[in-house]
Amino acid sequence: MTTMDTGSSLTVLLSRYAAVRNHTMALVAPLTAEDCGAQSMPDASPAKWHLAHTSWFFETFVLEAHEPGFAPFNPAFRVLFNSYYNGVGAKHPRPQRGLLTRPALAEVLAYRADVDRRVARLMPTVLQNDALGALVELGLQHEQQHQELLLTDIKHLLSCNPIFPAYCDATLPVGDAAITPAAAPPGWVRVEGGLVDIGHKGAGFAFDNESPRHRCYLAPYALASRLVTCGEWLAFVDAGGYQQPAHWLAEGWDWRVVQGVEHPLYWHRQGDGGPWQVFTLAGLQPLQAAQPALHLSYYEAEAYARWAGARLPTEAEWEHAAQQAPTNGPDQLFGTAWQWTQSSYAAYPGFRVAEGAVGEYNGKFMVNQYVLRGSSCATPAGHARSSYRNFFPATARWQFTGLRLARDL
Amino acid sequence: MTTMDTGSSLTVLLSRYAAVRNHTMALVAPLTAEDCGAQSMPDASPAKWHLAHTSWFFETFVLEAHEPGFAPFNPAFRVLFNSYYNGVGAKHPRPQRGLLTRPALAEVLAYRADVDRRVARLMPTVLQNDALGALVELGLQHEQQHQELLLTDIKHLLSCNPIFPAYCDATLPVGDAAITPAAAPPGWVRVEGGLVDIGHKGAGFAFDNESPRHRCYLAPYALASRLVTCGEWLAFVDAGGYQQPAHWLAEGWDWRVVQGVEHPLYWHRQGDGGPWQVFTLAGLQPLQAAQPALHLSYYEAEAYARWAGARLPTEAEWEHAAQQAPTNGPDQLFGTAWQWTQSSYAAYPGFRVAEGAVGEYNGKFMVNQYVLRGSSCATPAGHARSSYRNFFPATARWQFTGLRLARDL
Amino acid sequence: MTTMDTGSSLTVLLSRYAAVRNHTMALVAPLTAEDCGAQSMPDASPAKWHLAHTSWFFETFVLEAHEPGFAPFNPAFRVLFNSYYNGVGAKHPRPQRGLLTRPALAEVLAYRADVDRRVARLMPTVLQNDALGALVELGLQHEQQHQELLLTDIKHLLSCNPIFPAYCDATLPVGDAAITPAAAPPGWVRVEGGLVDIGHKGAGFAFDNESPRHRCYLAPYALASRLVTCGEWLAFVDAGGYQQPAHWLAEGWDWRVVQGVEHPLYWHRQGDGGPWQVFTLAGLQPLQAAQPALHLSYYEAEAYARWAGARLPTEAEWEHAAQQAPTNGPDQLFGTAWQWTQSSYAAYPGFRVAEGAVGEYNGKFMVNQYVLRGSSCATPAGHARSSYRNFFPATARWQFTGLRLARDL
Amino acid sequence: MTTMDTGSSLTVLLSRYAAVRNHTMALVAPLTAEDCGAQSMPDASPAKWHLAHTSWFFETFVLEAHEPGFAPFNPAFRVLFNSYYNGVGAKHPRPQRGLLTRPALAEVLAYRADVDRRVARLMPTVLQNDALGALVELGLQHEQQHQELLLTDIKHLLSCNPIFPAYCDATLPVGDAAITPAAAPPGWVRVEGGLVDIGHKGAGFAFDNESPRHRCYLAPYALASRLVTCGEWLAFVDAGGYQQPAHWLAEGWDWRVVQGVEHPLYWHRQGDGGPWQVFTLAGLQPLQAAQPALHLSYYEAEAYARWAGARLPTEAEWEHAAQQAPTNGPDQLFGTAWQWTQSSYAAYPGFRVAEGAVGEYNGKFMVNQYVLRGSSCATPAGHARSSYRNFFPATARWQFTGLRLARDL
Repeated sequence: MTTMDTGSSLTVLLSRYAAVRNHTMALVAPLTAEDCGAQSMPDASPAKWHLAHTSWFFETFVLEAHEPGFAPFNPAFRVLFNSYYNGVGAKHPRPQRGLLTRPALAEVLAYRADVDRRVARLMPTVLQNDALGALVELGLQHEQQHQELLLTDIKHLLSCNPIFPAYCDATLPVGDAAITPAAAPPGWVRVEGGLVDIGHKGAGFAFDNESPRHRCYLAPYALASRLVTCGEWLAFVDAGGYQQPAHWLAEGWDWRVVQGVEHPLYWHRQGDGGPWQVFTLAGLQPLQAAQPALHLSYYEAEAYARWAGARLPTEAEWEHAAQQAPTNGPDQLFGTAWQWTQSSYAAYPGFRVAEGAVGEYNGKFMVNQYVLRGSSCATPAGHARSSYRNFFPATARWQFTGLRLARDL
Repeated sequence: MTTMDTGSSLTVLLSRYAAVRNHTMALVAPLTAEDCGAQSMPDASPAKWHLAHTSWFFETFVLEAHEPGFAPFNPAFRVLFNSYYNGVGAKHPRPQRGLLTRPALAEVLAYRADVDRRVARLMPTVLQNDALGALVELGLQHEQQHQELLLTDIKHLLSCNPIFPAYCDATLPVGDAAITPAAAPPGWVRVEGGLVDIGHKGAGFAFDNESPRHRCYLAPYALASRLVTCGEWLAFVDAGGYQQPAHWLAEGWDWRVVQGVEHPLYWHRQGDGGPWQVFTLAGLQPLQAAQPALHLSYYEAEAYARWAGARLPTEAEWEHAAQQAPTNGPDQLFGTAWQWTQSSYAAYPGFRVAEGAVGEYNGKFMVNQYVLRGSSCATPAGHARSSYRNFFPATARWQFTGLRLARDL
Repeated sequence: MTTMDTGSSLTVLLSRYAAVRNHTMALVAPLTAEDCGAQSMPDASPAKWHLAHTSWFFETFVLEAHEPGFAPFNPAFRVLFNSYYNGVGAKHPRPQRGLLTRPALAEVLAYRADVDRRVARLMPTVLQNDALGALVELGLQHEQQHQELLLTDIKHLLSCNPIFPAYCDATLPVGDAAITPAAAPPGWVRVEGGLVDIGHKGAGFAFDNESPRHRCYLAPYALASRLVTCGEWLAFVDAGGYQQPAHWLAEGWDWRVVQGVEHPLYWHRQGDGGPWQVFTLAGLQPLQAAQPALHLSYYEAEAYARWAGARLPTEAEWEHAAQQAPTNGPDQLFGTAWQWTQSSYAAYPGFRVAEGAVGEYNGKFMVNQYVLRGSSCATPAGHARSSYRNFFPATARWQFTGLRLARDL
Repeated sequence: MTTMDTGSSLTVLLSRYAAVRNHTMALVAPLTAEDCGAQSMPDASPAKWHLAHTSWFFETFVLEAHEPGFAPFNPAFRVLFNSYYNGVGAKHPRPQRGLLTRPALAEVLAYRADVDRRVARLMPTVLQNDALGALVELGLQHEQQHQELLLTDIKHLLSCNPIFPAYCDATLPVGDAAITPAAAPPGWVRVEGGLVDIGHKGAGFAFDNESPRHRCYLAPYALASRLVTCGEWLAFVDAGGYQQPAHWLAEGWDWRVVQGVEHPLYWHRQGDGGPWQVFTLAGLQPLQAAQPALHLSYYEAEAYARWAGARLPTEAEWEHAAQQAPTNGPDQLFGTAWQWTQSSYAAYPGFRVAEGAVGEYNGKFMVNQYVLRGSSCATPAGHARSSYRNFFPATARWQFTGLRLARDL
């Protein structure tokens, strides 16, 4: 990660901090206190927890070491809102976050306001301390990651309610309710490959897992010009794609059978032959053929690709193509759906874990997860870049995950 | 169950209805909307769900068949707030009740108010229809049962929060915070037994499982004059009672090992040799020796009794003694803790299940549960009687469950 | 339990001992070493384990304290073949009994022979020591219990093999292959009841749980004249009995759904409309309408009874009727199938657990199990009596369990 | 995979076939029928099943299509001994392989003999049919894979027995009982890397997953000159390596805690401070410091490497170094232990799944597994090569898995 430009004025810094923090508040505006408190599954967190944890991050990593006369807003919050940083001490069990009805939402909002006030007061110091500036920036990037999780977690929660409440209405669309459908028929973008460089470059922010930039060799390949659509996925469903083990990884087939999966998450159908509907942040909507297929597991993406005579791209193929994008690139690289790659999430050659608790950020998750590239309809503006490495287990479906096909040349 | 006295005036009926319904509202007064929405385990329900389900009961069993021009307050509520009545249609999965962030608490309160208004309007009809009167009474008794569950469920929820919030303060004690400790040393109350009659008698309300009244033979026995106290239980703990399989039922021992149980639920200890504390509705309190031991599983109660050279009473022994109580009876029969008996919950000879959905009330639970007698500190006033049969699985600990010893003569 | 008649000659004692022990050997005669080693589920044990454990019982409870210069055949066997006697020391985990490929079957048979030789040598002492004689008798009764388990466990094991091997052939029928079908249509045997005595009486052997004999009161009742047949059960299946929750206990319905139970254990059907077959110890056989329905869980028995407008008998009703049987009794009381009663397995009034490890025999299982009365086609000759209390959890189906209906008068 | 050299004489072919098939028989020679029938966990198979399944492979893929007048030895075996080939039809549930006490071992051996006789008769045809020759070779390679599994599965089975039986005695050592300890202190072998070619090359046999040979870029690196030893691993244990989450992947730490892992599989210690012992195919042996650490999970290997300031090699690094081995290579590349790499098991660029059931061989397992390179003390002679890709989930410990460290230069 890189430090803040020390030449930037205090105003710019304060304004960026406020913009990110306020965006989180805007995301919870349509929610009740009850919505903010519930946790629909162990993988998801309550919105209230996201609100608190992102503030905890600033309090713990920015204020604690640098604020004169530091005292925690509430000592109990140090355990309650730690996520997974073993180096920082005890943590509340993840599957029980939905049981923390106290502190109430109002108290968590007070916590946020207090942290914001104290961080603002510390900003002159931040401007003069590169390492501290980097931590503030990390805190903001971290908060942006939680903004996306907050939306996907809320979507999952609302989807568990048989009355299917909408998060937003269609006149003020958010997330998948705001996706522009694919206009064009699918095509292939050819990429020559060869010896290419992959990984973060330049002075902007990046997470530790995007470095070091390194060389790798790519055979010639092609990427689909856009994501697989709901209409195309429906053809897979109708062709019995979910019933034929030959299309599936062995582990994927077992997962499908045990979970009873017969279509993407959030697809619904009235009765046996009724019309398909899709649950979105704007509620239940008729399936639209030109919309991207979303909420796919790695297993489903891989099975579809095999069925379609194609394959998933590697993350290096994706990144290399994205770097060339403006001239002759594929569409929907960013802002629609995270795109599964066939690359297991692993350290780049020469990767070093950072010292201290912040070093727990990414490295310790590098096993049995798969890299997704691009960004989604729920990713905050300014948070995406071509070297970004998102990662989830092969079973994960509640994120805005989609599929771009690839093939050899 | 018996019908309302048709001579009672409309005023009396309305007043009783209001008293019960208002008591539920009083119970949620100390709670936030977030408190009311959360579910701490599959066995427990959110307070909001109790509020709605008890209203659903009146809407479904009283209003639907008798209100002119009946229309449900909200058709979705019929599924959301059905508990286990298969005869009434679909139901929301019990472990997911905590995910129903919509309807919001405010809407559920509006539902309650609407049901109350409509039931009040129907009361003149109720007065003239014995069967309908019986259903209203059943609804009130049902609501009283949920009042107790609401308190025990909230206590469990608050106990899952590492900051241990109190439900009430010590100046306005509720439930276990209001128990009067045992004054006297324990003694034995001798009962002659013989051929006795057990079961509901008279014209008052009783649940179906309390009938028919029937004969059974009891050998002479003695009941402890009061419940086992925390001080006595601590002696069991300190004597290694939780470490010695010889005291335990085989299944109880396995349960203890797997669950890691080493003391009653809600007992806590700072560090290894610190003082014992007990979580109550008034928060964490120092263990008091004269308080009754609460929150015991059947297994624990049975192991303690064996260790103490005694046994659990049968439900017939308990009821027969309670019927004689005013003259020469044991203390703490009612209002402190439900008392485990060794009687498996089963149909009385000649028991018949009622027709229709209301018939699902009790009979279908008559397997692998044990009968508890008396009533607890959380039982609403007027809800207890000597023929009352409460029942829970042997593992249940979150109710206010205690132990009265028995022995042969 | 009672002591052996001290007047009995050594010859009689040796002959009885040999008869019981040899019968176990006869039961394993049709089996390979591989058959004897496998364990099909945690509830079942390998035949080899039964062979060894029953010998371990004599070695531990008879030889160890009384044989001059006692030394164990193999010290390792003390752990390997202990079943559940915590008082005797460590034990091998029950679900892993099938992994004990060593000692080999041949070595276990040598162990049996060695124990037999040593017990025979001790018999003159046994004749002069009532307590020791009682232990020998307990060992023989214990072995007879394991003879029945050995057959039911082997049946379960063979049933897991898709080629459905037969244990015996039809010309030499054993167990369910030897049952005489019901000749008569069903009728009701009326019993007056009243104040009756229940429990073991007289000088013969009985297990501790059959005592003390005690008084109880029975209202008038009727028992079915014979067991429910396969033909009658098929009518229940065809009437949708397994699809209608109203017939079932709530816990039974959940069990049925989770386990996917749609007919008794060991019933099979080729395709959707093919003829029903039943797996027996003689292999797969066409379902015969007049054969008793076997391998029922308590839940299934209870559901059938409810559907049929009847109920399960209590164990006291069953025993009282059986005591009167020669004059005017029901058929198939013994030798066909264990008969579920509605009685939870509990201590009789005044029951006392025996001292020492032998005291772990029965008392510690008295929770969440139901009593079965009579005896089955797999019960060894001479092992049945009207006060005998068999017990299993409500889910158990691999024993020869059947159903006799009861009703109030 | 490549075809047999059609110039090879029938004698050579028959002799190779007999050598491989006889080696399997030699492996089961020390085992009883009971040993051969038991299954210690779902991941392992009974030896009898290995014997039958490897014969099933020849019967199904070689004989069925090519033997004139083909008839299966036993039609039931087609289901019983299918492993995971969905394309071939039904299969017996893997966790229940230990319940197949029939066919008996003797019948399975007769099956093997019959298949051998028929395959031998078909060999002249095989010589003239390249595709058929390739299937025979695949069958032999497949059998060699099962020879290793047979040994590791038996080792696991025997380890579950508290008397720790030995498979072989120390005078005739097999597998880990025959490993030569490391003589030298550890060092680093430097490798320049660059643009290198990886994957199978030449005319010899290889599995589909080793192709196509392809280019990749490697930064300079170093590999440890030998495997990590038990003595070195003990230092990790003694340093609290299993108690410090900072060394572990998050998922690895959770696995460690849930499974209670505190040392490699098969390490034992008498009491708390007693000497360490290691269970081997020759029984329980004192831990020897110079022996390689074996039976490590990926998580343990990764944690150790992190603790040691090193990392796991990639599979390309391993293969590239192994190709250069004779001149300046690391020791213990082959014949000691499979060596975890950090490479997730994935398709090589350009990989194509073969048509038909044989195509299910490798491709469908390419998710959530990690590649191991080299070969182990249990790998049959002639079965190893530098392009060989073994693969197991990160949790697997019952194979002979070890660790070679790597680092960046």
